[in-house]
Amino acid sequence: MAVETIASTVSASTDFGPAVALSCRECAERFPLGPIFACEVCFGPLEVAYEFPSGDPEGLRKRIEAGPHSIWRYAPLLPVPADVASKPNLDPGFTKLVKADRLARELGVTGALHVKDDSGNPTHSFKDRVVAIAVEAARNFGLTTLSCSSTGNLAGAVGAAAVRAGFRSCVFIPHDLEAGKVVMAAVYGGELVGIEGTYDDVNRFCSELIGDPLGEGWGFTNVNLRPYYGEGSKTLAYEICEQLGWRLPDNIVIPVASGSQLTKIDKGLQELVKLGLVEDKQYRIYGAQAEGCSPVSTAFRAGHDVVRPQKPNTIAKSLAIGNPADGPYVLDIARRTGGAVEDVNDEQIVDAIKLLARTEGIFAETAGGVTIGVLKKLIETGQLDPAAETVAINTGDGLKTLDAVAPTTGPTAIIRPTLDSFREAGLA
Amino acid sequence: MAVETIASTVSASTDFGPAVALSCRECAERFPLGPIFACEVCFGPLEVAYEFPSGDPEGLRKRIEAGPHSIWRYAPLLPVPADVASKPNLDPGFTKLVKADRLARELGVTGALHVKDDSGNPTHSFKDRVVAIAVEAARNFGLTTLSCSSTGNLAGAVGAAAVRAGFRSCVFIPHDLEAGKVVMAAVYGGELVGIEGTYDDVNRFCSELIGDPLGEGWGFTNVNLRPYYGEGSKTLAYEICEQLGWRLPDNIVIPVASGSQLTKIDKGLQELVKLGLVEDKQYRIYGAQAEGCSPVSTAFRAGHDVVRPQKPNTIAKSLAIGNPADGPYVLDIARRTGGAVEDVNDEQIVDAIKLLARTEGIFAETAGGVTIGVLKKLIETGQLDPAAETVAINTGDGLKTLDAVAPTTGPTAIIRPTLDSFREAGLA
Ligand SMILES: Cc1ncc(COP(=O)(O)O)c(C=O)c1O
Ligand SMILES: Cc1ncc(COP(=O)(O)O)c(C=O)c1O
Ligand SMILES: [Zn+2]
Ligand SMILES: [Zn+2]
Repeated sequence: MAVETIASTVSASTDFGPAVALSCRECAERFPLGPIFACEVCFGPLEVAYEFPSGDPEGLRKRIEAGPHSIWRYAPLLPVPADVASKPNLDPGFTKLVKADRLARELGVTGALHVKDDSGNPTHSFKDRVVAIAVEAARNFGLTTLSCSSTGNLAGAVGAAAVRAGFRSCVFIPHDLEAGKVVMAAVYGGELVGIEGTYDDVNRFCSELIGDPLGEGWGFTNVNLRPYYGEGSKTLAYEICEQLGWRLPDNIVIPVASGSQLTKIDKGLQELVKLGLVEDKQYRIYGAQAEGCSPVSTAFRAGHDVVRPQKPNTIAKSLAIGNPADGPYVLDIARRTGGAVEDVNDEQIVDAIKLLARTEGIFAETAGGVTIGVLKKLIETGQLDPAAETVAINTGDGLKTLDAVAPTTGPTAIIRPTLDSFREAGLA
Repeated sequence: MAVETIASTVSASTDFGPAVALSCRECAERFPLGPIFACEVCFGPLEVAYEFPSGDPEGLRKRIEAGPHSIWRYAPLLPVPADVASKPNLDPGFTKLVKADRLARELGVTGALHVKDDSGNPTHSFKDRVVAIAVEAARNFGLTTLSCSSTGNLAGAVGAAAVRAGFRSCVFIPHDLEAGKVVMAAVYGGELVGIEGTYDDVNRFCSELIGDPLGEGWGFTNVNLRPYYGEGSKTLAYEICEQLGWRLPDNIVIPVASGSQLTKIDKGLQELVKLGLVEDKQYRIYGAQAEGCSPVSTAFRAGHDVVRPQKPNTIAKSLAIGNPADGPYVLDIARRTGGAVEDVNDEQIVDAIKLLARTEGIFAETAGGVTIGVLKKLIETGQLDPAAETVAINTGDGLKTLDAVAPTTGPTAIIRPTLDSFREAGLA
């Protein structure tokens, strides 16, 4: 198995901060920290397990607040060395939590509504968070090539992070992605391979490559480094709570592709409670999908525990994962917390992108349209309490999916540079 | 004159913080703070004049450092009320200053090289800074419509800021801008008017509109609010020095369209010296233009004091101002500080975008390509000391000018999802 091959290159200077092991999400079996992602006993996914210093929440909170304005302020809660902020990387995170009063009014939300705007990250999606942690793992394991299977955003995030951190990169995408994502994935100068097939084909191919000598020394951020990668999404939970004044919100609405982000945000919230950084209370987690790729919301509605793969057909290409690795955990979390998983169609996605733009001045990509569209639908269908405090996460940037809105978004008028011409346009 | 018309709507609650007057850059005549931009005596441009509290630089520094992570930390040095951070706006600024060691190596820079990456702003250009100050002026003056003549970035920044701050907006652009800029200017739901003509035609039209009853109650960020707008660029100077540890760099390379940004960065640096926030030393200011729109660099090379208008023809559309309002001041500053104004052609702009991307993981728009391309040329021609400490400003985002790099930036290979197909591509 390639897993052992790669593990044998692990360097001696391994430093994962508070992380102590990998642990199977299914059977709880423990493994040493390494570039592995599946349990040898039951094939369940592996997660990072920690030994956090306990007993001094006030001290920990102060340490965090004195830290850098990036995800590295949470280094004590991540599988990274304590001096991680001094290593060359993109320093993502600590993006704005925007109080969305105008959006709230339009949606009939009477409680506080916030948009966590992750388009403010270095490559303008939340993927910079997960990649940053995977890069530290790759450094620890002595890997030399950074890779991934991507629906678009991850490819750009890996390409940029590899440059900054000094890795070679070779990333894989479906051949038919949006221009903005393809160019961004290529412009940093790493190898970019378009694959004739869906994301699920790309992902299957990457799993094969890991098992082949060709993939030796490669760190696939979302495959063999997936346990580390996933931890990056916890920082969204940390930031939201810190930015609320160290409080849990009532509801969080999160887009779902593989389900990693949603799963790890839940993990992050639970850690904050356990560490005494926030007071415990009920929170509800909502997942958002596109109707054209809705394996998880379909299973949720049907009351199923398993997720039946779909063949994606949606403008929300970044969420077009038909066979989501963490789908069952998303179902589990939505049900356990009293949330839901919903979906919206392409037209609703476009409408929601425009709604967010014209109410809050935030231009989201299609994934953000999915999230805001689902938020609207959850309220309209009585699944989300409009009097509660809600955070919706905008995970990506509208400039990467221009085609979604371009056909219906342009100049109000084209005129000659004269007052008469302007008067005729009737805009004053 | 419309100037008086609008000034008569000034509300009583005017609060410009430490700003006390407008002062003519040419004849030093003073005017009360109002929505005016040209001296009534000599038609020179007006600048904001301040009365800063003096004598306690350490206290001021501490106050700034304890402030928000946005331009509002510098509220004590800007024409804004002290409580500005609590008003709804986009909170731009405090973008990353990236130590660019790999770029330095490629360029033969042996001193410290930094890229100030303003693509991290809310609408991904430095324009969010200037607009934020103009918005506060518009609030103070009781104006109700936000407007501008724009080469692209400003339109999006005004559109988004208007939404957040609760203004109507109507912005004007040349009809032939890049798709990314047009969509971003339109998506926030304000009026967007494409004008058949160059930016200079657009700008002339806006000046006419201000003088017409049609434009009553309108705040043109870069025309009748230009004195306030310009002050936003000072925050780039403040941030650079603070991020260097309250120090002046030796050189700053700045793109030049109208010349406002460069002029105000110089103003900001001088204020820091006067206030005792940084130690005085020589610094050199360099201006960067595109060969296809190089009125200022042409005048610099020719040793002229006046700038002869040009008809722009360059892929750097955001810098395509053929008749730059602050051109003479740019010449003056470059000469006084021992800097220079240079230009690069379209091919060099594209090469520089790619150079920055593959060395630092920063994807810049064409204006950033101009800046990095000019930095390279300045070093190659011996105009900039490679042993000195240099800051180059990336003012915009590559996602807005995809067409510049798209023809030469794509997948290395397209393959089927099989190891054999990957092997054949020869990338491993
Ligand atoms: C913009 C954006 N949002 C959300 C997601 C969902 O991520 P996950 O696979 O963790 O569910 C992705 C995944 O590619 C994405 O690109
Ligand atoms: C990205 C970018 N950089 C630089 C500039 C130059 O600004 P100024 O007109 O202040 O010289 C502009 C102006 O539009 C711009 O859009
Ligand atoms: Zn197991
Ligand atoms: Zn004058």
